[in-house]
Amino acid sequence: MMQALTVGIDVGGTNTAFGIVNRRGEIISKGSISTRAHATVQDFVQALAAALHPHMVAAGTGNIAGIGVGAPNGNYYTGEIAFAPNLPWSGVIPLAKLINSETGLPCTLTNDANAAAIGEMTYGAARGMNDFIVVTLGTGVGSGFVANGKLIYGHDGFAGELGHVIAVRGGRECGCGRRGCLEAYCSATGIVRTATEWLSNRTDESMLRKGTPDARSIHNAAMNGDALALELFDYTARILGETLADTVAVTSPEAIIFFGGLANAGEMLLTPTRKYMEENMLNIFKNKVKLLQSALPDADAAILGASALAW
Amino acid sequence: MMQALTVGIDVGGTNTAFGIVNRRGEIISKGSISTRAHATVQDFVQALAAALHPHMVAAGTGNIAGIGVGAPNGNYYTGEIAFAPNLPWSGVIPLAKLINSETGLPCTLTNDANAAAIGEMTYGAARGMNDFIVVTLGTGVGSGFVANGKLIYGHDGFAGELGHVIAVRGGRECGCGRRGCLEAYCSATGIVRTATEWLSNRTDESMLRKGTPDARSIHNAAMNGDALALELFDYTARILGETLADTVAVTSPEAIIFFGGLANAGEMLLTPTRKYMEENMLNIFKNKVKLLQSALPDADAAILGASALAW
Repeated sequence: MMQALTVGIDVGGTNTAFGIVNRRGEIISKGSISTRAHATVQDFVQALAAALHPHMVAAGTGNIAGIGVGAPNGNYYTGEIAFAPNLPWSGVIPLAKLINSETGLPCTLTNDANAAAIGEMTYGAARGMNDFIVVTLGTGVGSGFVANGKLIYGHDGFAGELGHVIAVRGGRECGCGRRGCLEAYCSATGIVRTATEWLSNRTDESMLRKGTPDARSIHNAAMNGDALALELFDYTARILGETLADTVAVTSPEAIIFFGGLANAGEMLLTPTRKYMEENMLNIFKNKVKLLQSALPDADAAILGASALAW
Repeated sequence: MMQALTVGIDVGGTNTAFGIVNRRGEIISKGSISTRAHATVQDFVQALAAALHPHMVAAGTGNIAGIGVGAPNGNYYTGEIAFAPNLPWSGVIPLAKLINSETGLPCTLTNDANAAAIGEMTYGAARGMNDFIVVTLGTGVGSGFVANGKLIYGHDGFAGELGHVIAVRGGRECGCGRRGCLEAYCSATGIVRTATEWLSNRTDESMLRKGTPDARSIHNAAMNGDALALELFDYTARILGETLADTVAVTSPEAIIFFGGLANAGEMLLTPTRKYMEENMLNIFKNKVKLLQSALPDADAAILGASALAW
């Protein structure tokens, strides 16, 4: 009998969300537990299995093919989370193995951006595509590269770190300890850093001078024609477009799909990004690459991506 | 019956070399014709088939599985050469189809760097590797990316243009019409451009002031301790190492294999390139990626690469 369901788990720094998903990408049941409240990963996995259990029983445990997990710094080959700065457990955590032991179901793990790429390919904007990139613009910048219909994990499982490509050589400091990473400019956090810097260095009027700017308030201000906010999008899009032009030269994707907090600005970000990418691109790649917003429902995308991993 | 042989054809701007190759990567018979002497591609293909014919008869035509062609701007999906600036025929040339019509054998075509990558995977330094990059440092810089054991052609067949990633934003002009491409600095031609610039702008003594420098004379001077030549390798290696550090973050290869005129400098180039790559790399990738010189015999590598395409 073909099993009809999988479990998707999205491990975040604050909460861990899970859902039971059918082959059409519908979440038939979902829940969540706190990540932070569990000081050891053993406690966390026990609490997760306990929370999952009634959902699995209701869906019919025998119908569930397996569990997919998306987690920061998750490694597909080893099933481990390695030194994730935003999780409460330090060192190398064999999360897939622990979940498998606790639930008896096969468990596959990858990082959140790779899970998003598999989700887009299985249920979202990349259905039918063999060559595409998913870029997550959240607290950081993550990415999942698909070529020949398969995710590129690289020889060690850590491929796809577009957020740590140097976008501005010698530029601003990044959380990774180096300078000028794409993530330092083009994440939700990055655009806020730029805003804070400009508000402090410049004197022009802006709606953003009220309160503390975040990706959403910058987007709102830009939608209301605020000149500084519009310039922030243009600046961020220039750096993103330049880096994407170089990225396209390597894997020549059919589309680049954006996801996460800053990507919610939609065409406010994508229109100038497209312009700068095209301006900076080698001739043979011009006017071929689609820049798209994720087609997965925002709140559930991470669960769907992880669940798709289990097929 | 398993066919035991393939034909490899390396189309160059001046000459076109071909060979009949067995499964162990030995060229059992080879020849060449002029590329330039044939004003139309039809003439060229007829001359090529005529030159190949006696070699195929001697090897036993029935033993030949097919023909693989490596050509500048060759597209694997379409079998066409598109607007290759160094070939005498303009526009889009359906070379694979023409060769197939003329010889009756199945013909597969790709660009020279992709052919080199397949050659390294089949017979060379990348045997047993699923994730690696081949970088050709010749007149230009080409590259072939392999992930999950398969060449990345991209959605349009043009992936792998590492030579046209921007290494120095706003830098020197490149033949592609843009500025700062890796190819403008780190090809055999690029290091000569740097040498010419320095010899003109500076007054320090150097062996390179005798005659016109080329990649080989710069290597020889560096081997003899010439300070300017050593500095040329350091400068070129810094730009190459910085770009490779970013490239590793995308596909996380086990090895990067170098090939072509400038790569013949071996460790004179690879030792400082390794240093700069490691210095600029995200922590999780450090001390994992091998930089290797091609293990294919220099003169025959392009034929071997193309021949491997036909298996």
